[in-house]
Amino acid sequence: MCKPIKIGVLGLGRIGMLHSRNVASMPQFQIIAAADPYLNPDMESNAMALGIPMVSKDPQTVFDHPEIEAVLIASATETHSDFIIQAAERNIAAFCEKPIDNNIERIEKALCAVKKSGIKLQIGFVRRFDRHHARLQALVSQGKAGEVNLLKITSRDPSPPTYEYVANSGGIYVDMMIHDFDMARFMVGSEVDEVFAAGTVLCDPLFEKAHDADTAVVTLKFTNGALGVIDNSRRSGFGYDQRIEVLGSKGCLMDQNPSDSNVLYCDNEGIHAEPVQHFFLERYNDAFVNELRQFANSMHDNTPMPVTGFDGLQAVLIAEAADRSAVSGKFEKVRRISI
Amino acid sequence: MCKPIKIGVLGLGRIGMLHSRNVASMPQFQIIAAADPYLNPDMESNAMALGIPMVSKDPQTVFDHPEIEAVLIASATETHSDFIIQAAERNIAAFCEKPIDNNIERIEKALCAVKKSGIKLQIGFVRRFDRHHARLQALVSQGKAGEVNLLKITSRDPSPPTYEYVANSGGIYVDMMIHDFDMARFMVGSEVDEVFAAGTVLCDPLFEKAHDADTAVVTLKFTNGALGVIDNSRRSGFGYDQRIEVLGSKGCLMDQNPSDSNVLYCDNEGIHAEPVQHFFLERYNDAFVNELRQFANSMHDNTPMPVTGFDGLQAVLIAEAADRSAVSGKFEKVRRISI
Amino acid sequence: MCKPIKIGVLGLGRIGMLHSRNVASMPQFQIIAAADPYLNPDMESNAMALGIPMVSKDPQTVFDHPEIEAVLIASATETHSDFIIQAAERNIAAFCEKPIDNNIERIEKALCAVKKSGIKLQIGFVRRFDRHHARLQALVSQGKAGEVNLLKITSRDPSPPTYEYVANSGGIYVDMMIHDFDMARFMVGSEVDEVFAAGTVLCDPLFEKAHDADTAVVTLKFTNGALGVIDNSRRSGFGYDQRIEVLGSKGCLMDQNPSDSNVLYCDNEGIHAEPVQHFFLERYNDAFVNELRQFANSMHDNTPMPVTGFDGLQAVLIAEAADRSAVSGKFEKVRRISI
Amino acid sequence: MCKPIKIGVLGLGRIGMLHSRNVASMPQFQIIAAADPYLNPDMESNAMALGIPMVSKDPQTVFDHPEIEAVLIASATETHSDFIIQAAERNIAAFCEKPIDNNIERIEKALCAVKKSGIKLQIGFVRRFDRHHARLQALVSQGKAGEVNLLKITSRDPSPPTYEYVANSGGIYVDMMIHDFDMARFMVGSEVDEVFAAGTVLCDPLFEKAHDADTAVVTLKFTNGALGVIDNSRRSGFGYDQRIEVLGSKGCLMDQNPSDSNVLYCDNEGIHAEPVQHFFLERYNDAFVNELRQFANSMHDNTPMPVTGFDGLQAVLIAEAADRSAVSGKFEKVRRISI
Repeated sequence: MCKPIKIGVLGLGRIGMLHSRNVASMPQFQIIAAADPYLNPDMESNAMALGIPMVSKDPQTVFDHPEIEAVLIASATETHSDFIIQAAERNIAAFCEKPIDNNIERIEKALCAVKKSGIKLQIGFVRRFDRHHARLQALVSQGKAGEVNLLKITSRDPSPPTYEYVANSGGIYVDMMIHDFDMARFMVGSEVDEVFAAGTVLCDPLFEKAHDADTAVVTLKFTNGALGVIDNSRRSGFGYDQRIEVLGSKGCLMDQNPSDSNVLYCDNEGIHAEPVQHFFLERYNDAFVNELRQFANSMHDNTPMPVTGFDGLQAVLIAEAADRSAVSGKFEKVRRISI
Repeated sequence: MCKPIKIGVLGLGRIGMLHSRNVASMPQFQIIAAADPYLNPDMESNAMALGIPMVSKDPQTVFDHPEIEAVLIASATETHSDFIIQAAERNIAAFCEKPIDNNIERIEKALCAVKKSGIKLQIGFVRRFDRHHARLQALVSQGKAGEVNLLKITSRDPSPPTYEYVANSGGIYVDMMIHDFDMARFMVGSEVDEVFAAGTVLCDPLFEKAHDADTAVVTLKFTNGALGVIDNSRRSGFGYDQRIEVLGSKGCLMDQNPSDSNVLYCDNEGIHAEPVQHFFLERYNDAFVNELRQFANSMHDNTPMPVTGFDGLQAVLIAEAADRSAVSGKFEKVRRISI
Repeated sequence: MCKPIKIGVLGLGRIGMLHSRNVASMPQFQIIAAADPYLNPDMESNAMALGIPMVSKDPQTVFDHPEIEAVLIASATETHSDFIIQAAERNIAAFCEKPIDNNIERIEKALCAVKKSGIKLQIGFVRRFDRHHARLQALVSQGKAGEVNLLKITSRDPSPPTYEYVANSGGIYVDMMIHDFDMARFMVGSEVDEVFAAGTVLCDPLFEKAHDADTAVVTLKFTNGALGVIDNSRRSGFGYDQRIEVLGSKGCLMDQNPSDSNVLYCDNEGIHAEPVQHFFLERYNDAFVNELRQFANSMHDNTPMPVTGFDGLQAVLIAEAADRSAVSGKFEKVRRISI
Repeated sequence: MCKPIKIGVLGLGRIGMLHSRNVASMPQFQIIAAADPYLNPDMESNAMALGIPMVSKDPQTVFDHPEIEAVLIASATETHSDFIIQAAERNIAAFCEKPIDNNIERIEKALCAVKKSGIKLQIGFVRRFDRHHARLQALVSQGKAGEVNLLKITSRDPSPPTYEYVANSGGIYVDMMIHDFDMARFMVGSEVDEVFAAGTVLCDPLFEKAHDADTAVVTLKFTNGALGVIDNSRRSGFGYDQRIEVLGSKGCLMDQNPSDSNVLYCDNEGIHAEPVQHFFLERYNDAFVNELRQFANSMHDNTPMPVTGFDGLQAVLIAEAADRSAVSGKFEKVRRISI
């Protein structure tokens, strides 16, 4: 077995702890330090339980660790770009949660630093590593459905988040649908050229207050001519609804929502299958491990990262075009930026 | 269009009326007379509503009708054989509900008369004409699953019938499982050689009182070496459960219970499909029409009947072996009778 | 049984013959005359085989029949309005195939005549009478899914029609998606306020030549606030793809494509279900009979028609807004017209 | 986190290595020694790769390890009883692969030793820990289906094993169906009273040569009156077929074969789902980990083992009755032995 990668964790909130728990259980990694500016006793004891030897409020202690080989960036979105730049300066690999940043200029700077330094950067589009979606993509790219004509993505949360979450989220397109924008590029194998967004508030008035939408339908035109449509809702009423469908020239591929078990119950009222997995923690549990295994493999084998900074930028650019379209009521072009 | 077949109906109970309604709506037939020894005003007005011109208590009025070309025998089981013999004597075709008879000697006499006269006789094993079972059989006979190794049939009523029905039914093997014995021969394309029957009372004590079983598992050995297993219950709790599975050397074919619609409903408790069709009237509605259409076609084209007197006899012989096995607790040979 | 309605058929092309065959087999109707300006020997012999006593090239012979009680209008679209007006003048009921007309002014005139005369008019939106869609709508209207938030309709033909058909069709929105526009109003129980249409050519260059699209995604805003999205393709590659999904505040309802049988086949390559029904003739076969049965019932009981001229007009107005949107690239309001 | 249990492994064949890999990756255990009398260089290097510090041909080196707390017995079946007795003598816990032994006298001696010493013993009926089967059992025991009337188990291997395997397996009932006998008791919550077995050779003549069956149908009578039926085949032709169905007084529960992904592909030939998981390594992968996690929990919390020596004995006694029935052709009583 190879020597584990010495990794530092930035951010110990919900998603930072999720990654830390996974990394701690993987032989490919050794967490040598973690930092969170909002560190509280709970975070500290959780980190300790995972055997993280050094926990502080200051990210510099992580970057300054003499043996550091990689950082896992799961801090507040607006800090991502700066941490990527610091990783580039220290010449260490970085795994960065989505989105890279909500500010496109800062993303450009970060990606320039990455390019110049040649460090490895992976963006955390975890859904690419879900076995159902990954299998669907593999079949599409093998030509099973022929030329892609139409992509459909349904992505719905079980129930709305809090007002605090929504008010700071950047809006439905960059917070929630950004996963689907990445998935769209992944599935179709082509860039998105134009975006049309129709959003409204139907689930909870809190979205009105936050000047956000909770239900949205977005139409995509890809550069290869294919059409796409994504629907998002903050309230499915039945669990985490994550379905993808690809209509091609030869047929149609689709995946379905997994349940925790395949048990069926038949009575006079019908045939009842088990509930769909509740939320992303259940549905993408294995995918979170898979994406980090791939990150380790790419570092070890010196191969390209499976989701690059370029990918991370495109998703933000599509979200930005969706924001513009929601205002203009017409198709908006996705900006092209070369790094 | 050809001239309709002039047919008489014997028996105007539940199944006789069901057939009469179907026959009355089919251009292939014209009902010219009907008789039922227990004729009551309800039956009479139902028959009249279908436009049957002559209704009586005396079956002879049907047989004596000068234009009669065929009879549909849906009277009490113990009258079937005699009616078949009369049809043979008058040289007219007969469609006879299952079972031919519960008495094997009487069946022999009836089939001898059929053979001697050369009349056409079809037995009402309606399930062969269900599109799901028929498609399954077609695929099996085309070799889709390879050589048949194991046949499984599940056949369950939604809820137990009355004591009166059960007490006069002849028991679960000849009344209920006889359909499955016919289906077994139809699917495997081989005769049943030995039968092992295990029955018990679990649904309702009325079966105890009637010296009958309400739940039964029967193992079959076919002459071609294949194994079979049938389970029957008088209470599924969820509708009419009718499933067939064929395991072959190359794979497995199975059919599923149809519902009235394909609508799914997803909520926090699961994914709910519509109830299975409730009973044989819903499930085999089209099949009842199909079997009579085939009867008309065979008369018209002078081709063999799709379910013969031989088929009818075999199912009764298997049921008789099952009855013996339920007593002896061991495999019993199916009797062979040549007509 | 009531006396059959004496009906005349206008148009003996594919859809006219389909209706004629159904009407001829239904005890509720008696076809007393039929006309088609392009009458050919084939049509004539088909009509004769159905027992239609009078067949001509001149529609007036139908309207002038002394016993006529209703007309079934299945002629070229541009003749519909005029025939409706003639029915109004003669005070007879009319069943008119969709669309009422491609010209909105002519529709207005026809509906004014209907209003003034008080005759019964049913428009042939057959999908409302499909048992799967009808069951879904019933559940939605019973509140099973709560308030409707998002409607999704997928509607795809198995493979493209001929250039001749396309060139005279009026385009994908008025020819094909008009069914989905009607279904959208039926499911949501609210009018469509705004439409956004994105169409392109991906299936066959013949659509380019005909200045039409073969693949289209349309976003709808309903007056009750709900969103809708419809996708159409002229080539599914796997049969007639007709699925509807309603996301509500309490859960999600959806229907699935039926197959001819429920048989499954399992082998090393997977679990294989039977093909989806091929095209509208198979899928909506029963629905075509159901809509005419309802037409007869409404005439007989003097109750409102299940699909009215108002319904027919709305679908055309939505299609017209979609046409405008496909040009403007933005949301277009659906015109409101009061008759 | 608690201190890991120091465990020794007996047997490094296929199943021993599978367990060793799982145990090595679980924080609950530390493997301190392993032994296999047929130790070869491959086994040795595999064991080394897992970090097992001591590997020998002599099981005594394992039992004699001064820190040993538990043994995992995955050696040849005829050695199980003796190893259990040695564990009892040293007062350490034992996890023993199924079956305990093929010789019932030896099982009695082993279980007496366990009883006298009070050591913890878990038998490796892994299927109880599969999430689909476990969920089904939980629902049955919660009364979801009401009183159990009929249990059906289908259990089929993808393709026949080698002659060498079969010749030493003890036959289909004790080698393969023993899992189903355990599952039957687990699901119904009642002991098996009588067994009827019908077996034959349909998959491969090698079974004839080994005086074994490759296809078998077994009927069970439970002491609570329920009926059961199990079908086994050594060749499903489509992967590892593992389905359970429980018909109760209120409805029917069933589980289905999982696939590696939920992707569907629709084309003109049908709707195709992904293949069923191929064999027990894929299907019961997580269950193998779960059973050992439970073993650790029971040791740690000093709670009863989830599958006891009593359970292990009953399954062997049912298999023994099945062997007798296959010869006698009638129901055979399951022997009752009290330890």
